[in-house]
Amino acid sequence: MAKKMVYFFGSGKAEGKAKMKAILGGKGANLAEMTNLGIPVPAGFTITTGTCADYYKSGNKWPVGLRKQVDMNLAKLEKAMDAKLGDPDQPLLVSVRSGAAVSMPGMMDTVLNLGLNDEVIEGIIARTGNARFAYDSYRRFIDMFGDVVMDCGHEPFEHAIDSLKKKVGAKLDTDLSADNLKELVRLYKAVYKKAVGKPFPQDPHKQLELSVNAVFSSWNAGRAIKYRELNNITGLLGTAVNVQSMVFGNMGDDCGTGVCFTRNPSTGERKYYGEFLMNAQGEDVVAGIRTPLPMIGLKKVNAKIYKQLTGFMDKLEKHYKDMQDMEFTIQQNKLYILQTRSGKRTAEAAMRTAVEMVRERLITKKEAIERLETAQIDHLLHPSFAPNAKRTVMAKGLPASPGAAVGQVVFTAHDAEAWDERGHKVILVRIETSPEDIGGMDAAVGILTQRGGMTSHAAVVARGMGRCCVAGASDININYAKKMMKIRGKTVKEGDWISLDGTEGEILSGKLPLVEPKLSGYFGKLMSWADEIRKLGIRTNADTPEDAARARKFGAEGIGLCRTEHMFFEGDRIWAVRQMILSADEYTDIRSQIATFDGDLTAAQKKQLDKLKKQFKTPKKEFEGALKKLLPYQRKDFIGIFTAMAGLPVTIRLLDPPLHEFLPQDVASQKEMAKRLGVKPAEVKAKVEDLHEFNPMLGHRGCRLSITYPEIARMQARAIIEAAITVSKKRKKVLPEIMIPLVGTVEELIFVKKHVIDEINKVFKEKKTKIPYMVGTMIEVPRAALTADEVAKEAEFFSFGTNDLTQMTMGFSRDDAGKFLGDYVDKGIYESDPFQSLDQNGVGKLVDIGIKLGRKTKPKLKIGICGEHGGDPASIHFCHKVGMNYVSCSPFRVPIARLAAAQAALADKK
Amino acid sequence: MAKKMVYFFGSGKAEGKAKMKAILGGKGANLAEMTNLGIPVPAGFTITTGTCADYYKSGNKWPVGLRKQVDMNLAKLEKAMDAKLGDPDQPLLVSVRSGAAVSMPGMMDTVLNLGLNDEVIEGIIARTGNARFAYDSYRRFIDMFGDVVMDCGHEPFEHAIDSLKKKVGAKLDTDLSADNLKELVRLYKAVYKKAVGKPFPQDPHKQLELSVNAVFSSWNAGRAIKYRELNNITGLLGTAVNVQSMVFGNMGDDCGTGVCFTRNPSTGERKYYGEFLMNAQGEDVVAGIRTPLPMIGLKKVNAKIYKQLTGFMDKLEKHYKDMQDMEFTIQQNKLYILQTRSGKRTAEAAMRTAVEMVRERLITKKEAIERLETAQIDHLLHPSFAPNAKRTVMAKGLPASPGAAVGQVVFTAHDAEAWDERGHKVILVRIETSPEDIGGMDAAVGILTQRGGMTSHAAVVARGMGRCCVAGASDININYAKKMMKIRGKTVKEGDWISLDGTEGEILSGKLPLVEPKLSGYFGKLMSWADEIRKLGIRTNADTPEDAARARKFGAEGIGLCRTEHMFFEGDRIWAVRQMILSADEYTDIRSQIATFDGDLTAAQKKQLDKLKKQFKTPKKEFEGALKKLLPYQRKDFIGIFTAMAGLPVTIRLLDPPLHEFLPQDVASQKEMAKRLGVKPAEVKAKVEDLHEFNPMLGHRGCRLSITYPEIARMQARAIIEAAITVSKKRKKVLPEIMIPLVGTVEELIFVKKHVIDEINKVFKEKKTKIPYMVGTMIEVPRAALTADEVAKEAEFFSFGTNDLTQMTMGFSRDDAGKFLGDYVDKGIYESDPFQSLDQNGVGKLVDIGIKLGRKTKPKLKIGICGEHGGDPASIHFCHKVGMNYVSCSPFRVPIARLAAAQAALADKK
Repeated sequence: MAKKMVYFFGSGKAEGKAKMKAILGGKGANLAEMTNLGIPVPAGFTITTGTCADYYKSGNKWPVGLRKQVDMNLAKLEKAMDAKLGDPDQPLLVSVRSGAAVSMPGMMDTVLNLGLNDEVIEGIIARTGNARFAYDSYRRFIDMFGDVVMDCGHEPFEHAIDSLKKKVGAKLDTDLSADNLKELVRLYKAVYKKAVGKPFPQDPHKQLELSVNAVFSSWNAGRAIKYRELNNITGLLGTAVNVQSMVFGNMGDDCGTGVCFTRNPSTGERKYYGEFLMNAQGEDVVAGIRTPLPMIGLKKVNAKIYKQLTGFMDKLEKHYKDMQDMEFTIQQNKLYILQTRSGKRTAEAAMRTAVEMVRERLITKKEAIERLETAQIDHLLHPSFAPNAKRTVMAKGLPASPGAAVGQVVFTAHDAEAWDERGHKVILVRIETSPEDIGGMDAAVGILTQRGGMTSHAAVVARGMGRCCVAGASDININYAKKMMKIRGKTVKEGDWISLDGTEGEILSGKLPLVEPKLSGYFGKLMSWADEIRKLGIRTNADTPEDAARARKFGAEGIGLCRTEHMFFEGDRIWAVRQMILSADEYTDIRSQIATFDGDLTAAQKKQLDKLKKQFKTPKKEFEGALKKLLPYQRKDFIGIFTAMAGLPVTIRLLDPPLHEFLPQDVASQKEMAKRLGVKPAEVKAKVEDLHEFNPMLGHRGCRLSITYPEIARMQARAIIEAAITVSKKRKKVLPEIMIPLVGTVEELIFVKKHVIDEINKVFKEKKTKIPYMVGTMIEVPRAALTADEVAKEAEFFSFGTNDLTQMTMGFSRDDAGKFLGDYVDKGIYESDPFQSLDQNGVGKLVDIGIKLGRKTKPKLKIGICGEHGGDPASIHFCHKVGMNYVSCSPFRVPIARLAAAQAALADKK
Repeated sequence: MAKKMVYFFGSGKAEGKAKMKAILGGKGANLAEMTNLGIPVPAGFTITTGTCADYYKSGNKWPVGLRKQVDMNLAKLEKAMDAKLGDPDQPLLVSVRSGAAVSMPGMMDTVLNLGLNDEVIEGIIARTGNARFAYDSYRRFIDMFGDVVMDCGHEPFEHAIDSLKKKVGAKLDTDLSADNLKELVRLYKAVYKKAVGKPFPQDPHKQLELSVNAVFSSWNAGRAIKYRELNNITGLLGTAVNVQSMVFGNMGDDCGTGVCFTRNPSTGERKYYGEFLMNAQGEDVVAGIRTPLPMIGLKKVNAKIYKQLTGFMDKLEKHYKDMQDMEFTIQQNKLYILQTRSGKRTAEAAMRTAVEMVRERLITKKEAIERLETAQIDHLLHPSFAPNAKRTVMAKGLPASPGAAVGQVVFTAHDAEAWDERGHKVILVRIETSPEDIGGMDAAVGILTQRGGMTSHAAVVARGMGRCCVAGASDININYAKKMMKIRGKTVKEGDWISLDGTEGEILSGKLPLVEPKLSGYFGKLMSWADEIRKLGIRTNADTPEDAARARKFGAEGIGLCRTEHMFFEGDRIWAVRQMILSADEYTDIRSQIATFDGDLTAAQKKQLDKLKKQFKTPKKEFEGALKKLLPYQRKDFIGIFTAMAGLPVTIRLLDPPLHEFLPQDVASQKEMAKRLGVKPAEVKAKVEDLHEFNPMLGHRGCRLSITYPEIARMQARAIIEAAITVSKKRKKVLPEIMIPLVGTVEELIFVKKHVIDEINKVFKEKKTKIPYMVGTMIEVPRAALTADEVAKEAEFFSFGTNDLTQMTMGFSRDDAGKFLGDYVDKGIYESDPFQSLDQNGVGKLVDIGIKLGRKTKPKLKIGICGEHGGDPASIHFCHKVGMNYVSCSPFRVPIARLAAAQAALADKK
């Protein structure tokens, strides 16, 4: 038997079905499925994807047998439609479309109205009496065929219609009369002949053959190949070709066309929704010349058709178990369904339909969770721009923190706070932000930076605050002195209004209308289902009691990362921090000199030692004094956080950033600091210069600080445990987890842990009580992952700090990568920003190695992630797969993480 | 049978032998060995290491049976020596020493003269007539026993002797009379009683028991445990105890003592060498009161003894197959050998003895290679300070580049060049150096920096030049404005003389006498043997034809790393580079804007596109113009290098550093640049600011430059291949290997390689010829190692850039780590600087992963190392072990690498 190359559908029966996507392509399989369901789909046939492969194998020729099968199926189609290709009296018109197993832009578009020629057109005019309709269809067909099938481009046709319109004084295409359009057909045929070198083919069979070839060829067009490469689409045979009879809604008053949704796509309400126009084509609805009627109107116009249609709607929704978006056409009182697909919906509608479909037993809870899009949750939590707002994009940056904001531009954190106090809504624009800017960032409705990536200071802090932020917009150029910026040549001054879209990363000119977010009960219901399914715990990154409380409301089950450095900036405590820094270095310098004296000393050495011991006293006293000042502040911070998270674990990271981040960099502030601390400005300047680092990312920070200054770790450990004891005395359960950052070798952990535990034991003795606590480490230095078996001997938990791990493993500074990562994504070197979504092939390998080695030493080792990837759905899937215990993310991403974790658990079962 | 716990040696026979180190400890085994060889060793016995373990098991008591065995062996010893412990007439005196299988500082020192008491002393005085000698021995014994065995410390004894000296008006110990010493014995006994709480034990058997216990206890003293931990010494049972009879060289004119070497330890000449004193103790030689006589003098004094001694020397050298350093004592015309060990020797002597011993068939070539110390080669290649020079160390830094230098201090590269031209020898002192300083570094005899580690710019460049360098000396404080520095409080001004020891990392005050290096024929011979043995290839890191030629002379078999950026600084070419940078950014910025126009354009868009295309022309022309200027310079550089390395492979790395390194950072130089290039100073300043990076190490550099500016890679590829064609036309074989740096993902390599190959094919077409070449990559980003199987698909070779790989894997910036790495080594967190010796547990794991994955894809992939570790012996062993093809190091380390590679090959066979 010859290979089956063509599958028919029509007259209530199809040779294919939905499951045959690999053979019939997505579109062909669905048309077959609908036909078999008894849905009146215009009849047609599908040439298989394998035939496309054979076409290439035969040297771009139809494989043996195809002609015969096409002819046979065409005859069947003609019979089903009671019409004939090229017959002027009963002309069959068809559409030709490509359709691979995976939806793939870049392949051939549709050719409509195939079958028209000079003869057929006359027949149609005779039959419909509508010459304008006939010629308009014809001229559109010639244009489409020339452009799409014969590759002449659309431009020469555009020129022709433009000159005709000028000549007859028409403004719009619709101003052209039937005669004008007849003339246009003539002109188009000339254009075609000039471009192709042959006259426009009058034989509909020839038209069909050329169209099928064009579909086959489009499979290996550059754009399609590139699309498959970029999306890793492999293993497909080729594209199928769908040849389907045309139906018309504009052949008279017993005709019409419309679109409908099985539920309301804006609200999710279970009510038929849609609109239609009688005696019209789909295009008429789009052109906006006539106003379509709401779907319920169809009941009045034609109750029978309305009943049929709603019946099909119910049937299809039930069959596909999802809200359907359908196109229909009524041709001479006969209803055809042209297409059905899952309906696009708002976030609110997605939630509501999902919950209601579960209640209707249409889908299971698991299916409801599976089909939700995590991206939609952002819209529920953050303001967005009204969907109909006119957007003028001035420039793009990174979508650093989702949401929308409208405000007046200011260029300093100080101005942001001042303007905010005066009642203005402001957008803080900075080249980059630093910890000193936190107050201003909080006062602003949105934040825009010129530099920095997805994990830059601005991005991380803004996400934590739930504040909209566009970061690393390299097309803006800020002039602080003049309080203005240039955006691609346009000047924006202080006080000018702009709008920011943090979800898309766009800077928009002027004031756009905002839509405030709202959370429905459906959202809560879905989240509770997600919680039932997921295996991963969800924690949050929070540095303040407010953030902690907010995250808890969003469902966080603890804090995975509480950074202690932000606390050092607040209010007056920065002065104690600066005093500490000034004395610390001097103190430890002398201390290490003293340590070099060993064994029997000469008299001169003894004298020198005594001198050093004397010198030592002043900075030591100052250093300890500064730490004593900081202790109550830190303790108070932790009391607040432990109270907000009572009953849940709180992971606190010891001081991490290099000390120079706490010192003022500009001369004026250095003078202020000198005055305040009673030292010479030159001393402050010298200290700042001394602490300068070439690569602060890889510098004196993390546990390295605690190795030089163990007293700081001790002060923090004391503050944590004293706070924990205070809160637990109020009958609130406290579970502190002390996290030592930037460990690269277990020896570092041993050293710092010893100091931490020793100080904690002192507190226990003083307070005559004990509480449980843990000491663990961040795995963020590649070496720690590579030697995790060793590190696990000393760590009670691991938390992967994938921000730094990404920086070090890929060798990118997140603050500098913005300058070239764009080139990388443009040139296809990276698919996505590795700071946004974990680089699973590279960084992920290290994470996997780290987990395996860690659990080799301690099989039950608690392992989480606290980098920004903890809020990214793809990364959460990865965390589930490699067996982490929890992910931790910024408060506003907690719901997304809950959903993604549930989806990961479901995907894992398959 | 009872367990054997004690082994006897004496009277020409021993129960143990050299191979029983595990049981008898190193010392005991060697004493047994010597005894069995017929060497007259003072008799004694050894308590086994297992007995020490049993002592602990029995709760710090002598295990059952030990007492009996000790008594038995003591009786044997008394018989052999014809003396008796505690017998005033024929007293046996013994020494007690610890001795584990591995030499281990931190355990108990020696107790000498055990057996003395109030009675015995009288007998000795009666027998020798030398009361002074007797009392001096006795008081020393009480001090030693109190301090070492009973833990009273040495200090109270010191106080007692000091007050006695004051009282009798003695200045030196030797000023004390016999009576004074007798009084001192009384005082010491009182000190002992006060400290211990019991009188000094008069029973010699009690003395022995307590001493043996002290040796056992010292095995688990804190210092010994720590030493074992630090040096990973495990699996030992305990320490052995050696009890050996004492002999005396100061009992009359038929007595004497001396040290001797079987060959000259300074020159290596095969001649007996040593010195002796008659009627003297070893201490007398050290005290310098009497001048010892050269060994040949013994022949005159006592020809028989001389003949015996030289006989034993010959025997021992032959037996141990190495030059021996021996101690001997003559007691009443009887010769005793107290100790023999491998003699310490100068580098010259080491070379000569090794070669001559091979010629004498005493050892094999392999043994000669095995026993050489790589560190000694440095002394052969670089100047050093005269060994007797008085060194006043002002401060220490890192031993960044070996050798010694004496010069006048200058603080700028410019001054270094100017002073050098005027005939001064200068030491260039900088906070850190940058590529702009190269001229000054070359003009200086030594380089000293305040910051930066073993792979800082200063260190790497200095090693390349063979120039002495001390880097990262954090105790110096430079004031450029005043042209001075403070070193631990001392001021050193411009023009002051200092000395640098780059081998030790010391800054010394004043002018020290220098010894110039010399290379003998022995060195060359040994190197040729090393070459026969080693498996690793040895290449060099060289950027100039001069360096290449020098390295070739030292035995380099190619260039493993030719950095192209240094070439960009020379002479006028820096101006072309700067012009290129100014135009590059503008050009690529507009280019990427143009690239965003796609598909059908509106009229307004077309207008904008035209405008951009016009704007594009100026910077593009400037950019291309600058590259055209650079091309001939680069080509000339490569012609020089290819010529110097004719017949050998040359690996050239494409431009690596971030572009801002080529721009001037200070205002004056920026103005100069603006003037020279005809732009506004503000433009230059803006460009410098624009290119500023927070973490340049992780910034826009390496292949990332080529992705933004592929034109630069093309220019370099063209220069390389044009140069290669030119040189090969002169019938010289050229093997260029183009290396693409900082690859993190194979996509980067694919992109850059495509441009490189495309340009090379153009050159081939233009020149109508082809030459073989390779394109490979550096593995220096952790991600590249983790995905080396992918990278290997596109790379023809790998070269591990372990400098950057160390920085990223450990998260250390080499320029900043100096500030805290000291703390790390001090606190025992790291054993050594990971930039100096490869961190095999962490970074090494990644190297191993990279090699295994790379060879999985290409089993014959050529793999080398070009980081600074390529010249470090321990790292070279690692490179051999993991199966690299070659190491590459700076020219002056090539001989060290040849030797280390040979030693690695030998170690591997075992």
